Formats: sequence, structure tokens, C-alpha cells
Amino acid sequence: MDGVVQVIPVKGMPRVKAGDRLTLQILDSLKANGVTLEDSDVVVVTQKVVSKAEGRIVSIEEVKPGRKALELARRLRKDPRTVQVVLQEAKRVVRFGHGVLITETRHGFICANSGIDQSNVEEGYITLLPLDPDGSARRMRTQLERRTGKKLAVVITDTFGRPWREGQIDVAIGCSGIRPLEDLVGTTDPYGHLLRVTQPAVVDEIASAAELVMHKHSLTPVSVVRGVRYRRGDLGVKRIIRPWRYDLFR
Amino acid sequence: MDGVVQVIPVKGMPRVKAGDRLTLQILDSLKANGVTLEDSDVVVVTQKVVSKAEGRIVSIEEVKPGRKALELARRLRKDPRTVQVVLQEAKRVVRFGHGVLITETRHGFICANSGIDQSNVEEGYITLLPLDPDGSARRMRTQLERRTGKKLAVVITDTFGRPWREGQIDVAIGCSGIRPLEDLVGTTDPYGHLLRVTQPAVVDEIASAAELVMHKHSLTPVSVVRGVRYRRGDLGVKRIIRPWRYDLFR
Repeated sequence: MDGVVQVIPVKGMPRVKAGDRLTLQILDSLKANGVTLEDSDVVVVTQKVVSKAEGRIVSIEEVKPGRKALELARRLRKDPRTVQVVLQEAKRVVRFGHGVLITETRHGFICANSGIDQSNVEEGYITLLPLDPDGSARRMRTQLERRTGKKLAVVITDTFGRPWREGQIDVAIGCSGIRPLEDLVGTTDPYGHLLRVTQPAVVDEIASAAELVMHKHSLTPVSVVRGVRYRRGDLGVKRIIRPWRYDLFR
Repeated sequence: MDGVVQVIPVKGMPRVKAGDRLTLQILDSLKANGVTLEDSDVVVVTQKVVSKAEGRIVSIEEVKPGRKALELARRLRKDPRTVQVVLQEAKRVVRFGHGVLITETRHGFICANSGIDQSNVEEGYITLLPLDPDGSARRMRTQLERRTGKKLAVVITDTFGRPWREGQIDVAIGCSGIRPLEDLVGTTDPYGHLLRVTQPAVVDEIASAAELVMHKHSLTPVSVVRGVRYRRGDLGVKRIIRPWRYDLFR
């Protein structure tokens, strides 16, 4: 069966702590799972373990909510300390209501609560998004390539809600070794039509494919996506954030 | 390698015409590709071939633009006839600008141009979304199950842009045999936290995974996603459209 894409879960990763050498843990777990990396494999890593390894964690006890956080928390019926952390991680509040606080993060992502999260972390702690997810992906890719001798890509994912639809999907927040968009603009379809706007967001599709094996319950923060034809590149996810002035939904 | 998800392209599908019996063509192509359907396989079909088989196609020559279409077309520098078709397929215009026309379709999808499309179709024609994509998926699933004796799911996909990010991803516009959301609300993560809002949109993640093998160029409108653990159900994609009053971005 030619052209098959495989999504391979990497099970049994240890719980990651600040300062852990994540790429070594991933390589150990790959070995334990009997998975040998091949050229063009995409190693998909959830934000949570990257944030933990990078020490992007705060203790909720140590947060002092300011006036804006207290006011927003009251209106949204949230813990003022978590709202304070959301605001610290945000460039701006985009929308709030129905108990939901949508912000623009320092990176330009628009998501609930600036991407901070209390699931899959010790009680009383909150994880924050990595400061530079594309940079995190680049470091991991370089280390993985050096130790395996293979040409690889790394995609760091997070779980985002979206407007207009219930439920969440995983999207890419950082990538390296892969172009985030597969640019088909200016090429033709099999009927000879010029494709004017077609740019599949291949890193986001890989993130969603990976989520299918990385369930929230199963301590599977890493997977390998094999068989995707993609172009190498190092523009990062930053490249696909739509400039403010072109966006119809800010 | 336990728990692997496979995305298997079904290559060499014939060009689909109005009235074609799509499920028979899919079964023939599966056989030609050496793929035997198994219980729990998800058959993913792009909107384009479903629309064609259902005759959801209009000839651009026969469209008479009305006053609203003429005015919008002038402001957006688009063909007034395609704008007329967009408006006919829309409940309302949600946003327009930068040459983009975002509408809410009759089904409640919010997307560019009501989902109408001139790619991968004969010159001078436009495909429209199926009238009832969940119903189309249900009919296809029933027929495929009857002929194979397997328990299957069907997901019908389309390519949507999204706010805040460049590029497009494939999402589900219809489904049958699979619950659209995997509901984790009220369960706990491995650290014992209650998961309050986690509902992975598994049908959308399957749609994106499938796109990785169904490139716009390669006449591959069908794929099989194998190995996803999902719950059976027949609520349809309609179930995950967020009610207007709860949406912060209408």
C-alpha cells in the first residue's frame, strides 16, 4: 500500500520535570517502543512536556492577582490567580464571555487562556506555553538529528478550541525541519485549473493526526508521523500567523 | 507497534459524474488498491466527489447575478456570478474584505464562499456543498456496511481556511457511524485532575489526517483511516456547530 501515512504512538514516556533532557527521554522511549527513526519522520511532541522540561511552570500559590485580573475573574467566575497568569502571558484580550477568556499570546496565537493549563501537571501548578516554540522545535530537531543521523522534522502541538465549532483540535505551535504550509498557489489541479489560494497547513494537519494516538488519558506526549511528503524548511509556525491587518476576526 | 493509526490513500478513483454510484466506485477502487475494509475503519471522502455524484453542480453561464451580488462583487473584485452562487448557498454574510467573502452556509458552517469551489471540476462549473452532508455520509456508510459486512464510519471532508492562521486544513462537514466529539468532560487525567472542557473533535482530526494523503493534485478523493479508537454514534457534524448565542466570533 503505497503512500500510507502512519501515526506511531511513543508510549511509556517518564513524567517530565524542569531541566529534563527531553530529547534523550524521547530517544529512550522510542527504543523501548521498538521504533527506529527514519529519514523524513516527523517527531510530534505536545506542548506540555516541552513546557515542563523548560521550566515554564508556575505555582498558583505564588501568584498575586492585580486589579484587572480581579475584575475579569469576577465577571468570568474564574480564579483571579489563573486570570492573572493568563494576562501576564497575553499581548491582549481578544474576547471574553460565557466563562471563556480568549487572548492573543506573546507569540501571536489566539486561544483560550493564553494556552495556560492545569491538566497533566501536579496539583497547584500551571504550565505556560514555551517562550519560543519554534526555537524549542529547532533545538530538539538538531539534537535528534545529531544522535540518529537522520533528516527529521519536529512539530510541537497544543490543543486549541476554535470559533464556530465545539470541541478542540491539536494545532502546531512550533516546528522545525518542515515548511508549515505546502504552497500550491500558482500550480494547477488535474483539470488544469490554477489553484489560487490552496496552501494546506501541513503542520497543523500533522498535529491533528498525531492527537488521534496521543490521548489526554494515556500519558502519550510523543508520536512519530511517518510517510508525509513535505518540504524541508525552517520558517517555523510564526510564519503562518496571519498579520493583524489582514484578519477579519480580531 | 501497538496503537498505530494508518491513513491509506485510495488511488485511481474514476472522475465522478452526477448520478454515479459513489460507494460502488469506492469499493472498486479499494479492491484495485488491495485494501480490504476492516471493522472500525473510517472511510474519508472529500466533498467534491460527493457533490458531483449528487449533482450539486451549477454552470456558471446560467447564473444571473442579482443586485446584492453585483454590489459585493464590485467591492471584492470577484465574478458577480460566483458571488450570486455564494449568496444563494448562504444564510448570511459573516464578513467580507481583502477579497474574501465569509458566509454561514445553510448547514451552519462558517467558511469562505459558502464552500463553493471551481477546482477539480470541469471548466465553467462550480460545485456546491451537499445539501445534507450528514445524510450523505449515512447513506454511504449504510451501503458500504451492507456490501462489506463490516462496522464502518464515513467522514465527508472539505478544505476550510480559518481565522488567525494562514493556510487551510480539512475538516469534517458530514459523518456517520462515529461520534464527532470524544467527550472527556468529567473524566480525570493521569494526575487525577478533572478534565473540564476536553472534547477532542475526532472527526475533524481524522479529516486533517486524511488530507495528508489526499493531495489536491493527485486525484485521491478517498482514503481509509484505520486504528482510531472512536465511539460509534450517528449524531453527525451538525451536532458540533456552536449555537449562535454562545459564539464570540460571529
